[in-house]
Amino acid sequence: MKKDVDALMLENKIDVLLVTGTGWNNPFMVYFTGIAHVTGADLVKKRGEEPVLFFRSMERDEAARTGLKTRAYNLYPLQNLLKESGGDPYKAVAIRYQRMLNDLGITGGRIALYGQASVGESVNIFMELQRRMPELEFVGYQEKDVLLTAMSTKDEEEVSRIRRMGKITAEVVGMTREFISGHRVNEDVLVGEDGTPLTIGEVKKRINLWLMERGAENPEGTIFSINRDAGVPHSTGNNSDVLKLGQVIVFDIFPCEAGGGYYYDMTRTWCLGYAPKEVQRLYDQVFTVHQQVIKDLKMNAPFGDYQKLACEIFEDQGHATIINDPVVEEGYVHSLGHGVGLHIHERPNCGWDGNSKDTLRPGSIFTVEPGLYYPDRGMGMRLEDTIYAAPDGTFEILADCPLDLVLPIKGK
Amino acid sequence: MKKDVDALMLENKIDVLLVTGTGWNNPFMVYFTGIAHVTGADLVKKRGEEPVLFFRSMERDEAARTGLKTRAYNLYPLQNLLKESGGDPYKAVAIRYQRMLNDLGITGGRIALYGQASVGESVNIFMELQRRMPELEFVGYQEKDVLLTAMSTKDEEEVSRIRRMGKITAEVVGMTREFISGHRVNEDVLVGEDGTPLTIGEVKKRINLWLMERGAENPEGTIFSINRDAGVPHSTGNNSDVLKLGQVIVFDIFPCEAGGGYYYDMTRTWCLGYAPKEVQRLYDQVFTVHQQVIKDLKMNAPFGDYQKLACEIFEDQGHATIINDPVVEEGYVHSLGHGVGLHIHERPNCGWDGNSKDTLRPGSIFTVEPGLYYPDRGMGMRLEDTIYAAPDGTFEILADCPLDLVLPIKGK
Repeated sequence: MKKDVDALMLENKIDVLLVTGTGWNNPFMVYFTGIAHVTGADLVKKRGEEPVLFFRSMERDEAARTGLKTRAYNLYPLQNLLKESGGDPYKAVAIRYQRMLNDLGITGGRIALYGQASVGESVNIFMELQRRMPELEFVGYQEKDVLLTAMSTKDEEEVSRIRRMGKITAEVVGMTREFISGHRVNEDVLVGEDGTPLTIGEVKKRINLWLMERGAENPEGTIFSINRDAGVPHSTGNNSDVLKLGQVIVFDIFPCEAGGGYYYDMTRTWCLGYAPKEVQRLYDQVFTVHQQVIKDLKMNAPFGDYQKLACEIFEDQGHATIINDPVVEEGYVHSLGHGVGLHIHERPNCGWDGNSKDTLRPGSIFTVEPGLYYPDRGMGMRLEDTIYAAPDGTFEILADCPLDLVLPIKGK
Repeated sequence: MKKDVDALMLENKIDVLLVTGTGWNNPFMVYFTGIAHVTGADLVKKRGEEPVLFFRSMERDEAARTGLKTRAYNLYPLQNLLKESGGDPYKAVAIRYQRMLNDLGITGGRIALYGQASVGESVNIFMELQRRMPELEFVGYQEKDVLLTAMSTKDEEEVSRIRRMGKITAEVVGMTREFISGHRVNEDVLVGEDGTPLTIGEVKKRINLWLMERGAENPEGTIFSINRDAGVPHSTGNNSDVLKLGQVIVFDIFPCEAGGGYYYDMTRTWCLGYAPKEVQRLYDQVFTVHQQVIKDLKMNAPFGDYQKLACEIFEDQGHATIINDPVVEEGYVHSLGHGVGLHIHERPNCGWDGNSKDTLRPGSIFTVEPGLYYPDRGMGMRLEDTIYAAPDGTFEILADCPLDLVLPIKGK
């Protein structure tokens, strides 16, 4: 949780956090600023001190609205820096960082970098900063990365925001189901009142609208894929494909609060009108794993144990799994789940081989999403829910939504 | 233009381009892949050769759909790399880059990095790659940066996509105008049929919906700010503020094709019901600059000349300008415009001081957006259009949209 940041900095021997980039669609920045329309900002946090947000003068109102301690870039006029750097803007920014850090009393120590930004610029700027401040040590990979670890458990406000996104997600899934169900069938193809075939593009457009009407958005897209495409886990579906009876659909929806806030993640597998035997059989197997894993969840257990459990059950059912073949493309081909928060994928990890050290701790929010994939048989399926490990020791699915496979088509 | 990339690589003595990150909301990647649902991809382009897209197996369909030459990360199994790196995932990725580059015949030379990604990871990974491949030279700032320069002129397809976004933008601006105009007034406050005051939040929600219905989105937000907020150029407006007669509104809308495609950029300044004298006077001055600059545009002229022209006229009108005071906060406080494409801000630049070397070339698409800002007098205004420098030597505003200041309120 956010309150643990200073303790984690101490544990990791980190003196300074530097978060760069915009105040939206930039999880580590949003963690501190909330969703704020600041561009090209920097947040510097010394251990044991309040963070300081550097802002551009044109965005002073937005910066002030974050409630953070702020400092203007205007204190370091760019035209002077450019003179010093011989006209090289990357070097100019590196000099500015040096001054900004110095002015906060930082001349060396261990610094961890965060934020989403231009790779070309960042690599250049921070290599230059390293040359200018050899006493600064850029921290590499750490198992207990400060912010990822802090973010891996959620406080009450975060839980309520994710729960709200879960409610929206379940509503939109329900509306999508109703929308599809309300279609007529013409030679196995779902058609509207005017006889036009229903396409994935049309379904997705409505999903987007319904999300937006609720203050949500899906910057990472939505997976709504049919048959063979459903058999390729990250295939998002072809907009021009029409919906037909007996087809299996994987609908994986992972919206966030508009502007890059908290996410929710849910997947349902639907078969239109009726389920062919083979689809029903595989679905039942996935359902078994989904139910068994959720039933077995235990507080403080390694998340990876459940990847192992899922693989065991799937192997018993006769499927190949990633734990035995890391490059498997048919059977159970991915991890059981992942943490959810300001990132759609964050801690805890379970690891494809179940060997992650992450545990399910009070405050963890994570997905459970077993699936089976047989693209060459024209099918794939997955069931996913987002689950909260509550401080009272219970596990709670954060949004109610039916798991039914068959989506009845009401029209004729 | 994209066809110039190899020539620009030669001119800049660049051997390899490496673009990293996702296939959406990542302009340099989208430039090559189109909007594609590939995550954590890498695109490597040797000079004189087709680019190669590295992809994750789960996203093989999405990768194939780009039409690019592809190569699977599976060729470099992560679990082996992690063994080699002693469990350090950043080092593992650096080793993978080394192998990927080697397999394409790259063992050294000058490499330019691009793409939007995690700063902490990237700085670590590429510092490690530099240690492993000392013969690789990471290229720093270059005045004629290969991709920014290529992108600074648009080919026909790009122009038609930006023009289409212009049409959508103008439509939504028109709908917003109609929507506001249709309100009644109650004690100077705009109210709906049921008497509820109209808020900025309500207006913005509709703008978002109308954009989305047209396949557009506004990942960078929308500026719809009133009175004093309008006087702070990047203030986006408070959602809870109500709209009142006589208020001045800056409406700056910069949507892109959904998924992070081409942008359009337009600003209108509106006064509700009537314009107070002082507002009309400042508006007329901004209008004069807007018209004069557009009239004077000449092919191959330095873009900065028009920043100088705008500042001259504003100074003559009695305003402070940024050219004489780089940290000015009242008067004309920003640059005249910027290129528009897959980035909302790209080349050509004009420079706050008009000293950019960028010129308006056939194929350039850029904004002209003079403005005046007096937050302490409770007002600001800006007029902005996106302009195409056509190969036939003419300049064309890419979307028609009235510039009128007063927005008549029809209801009573």
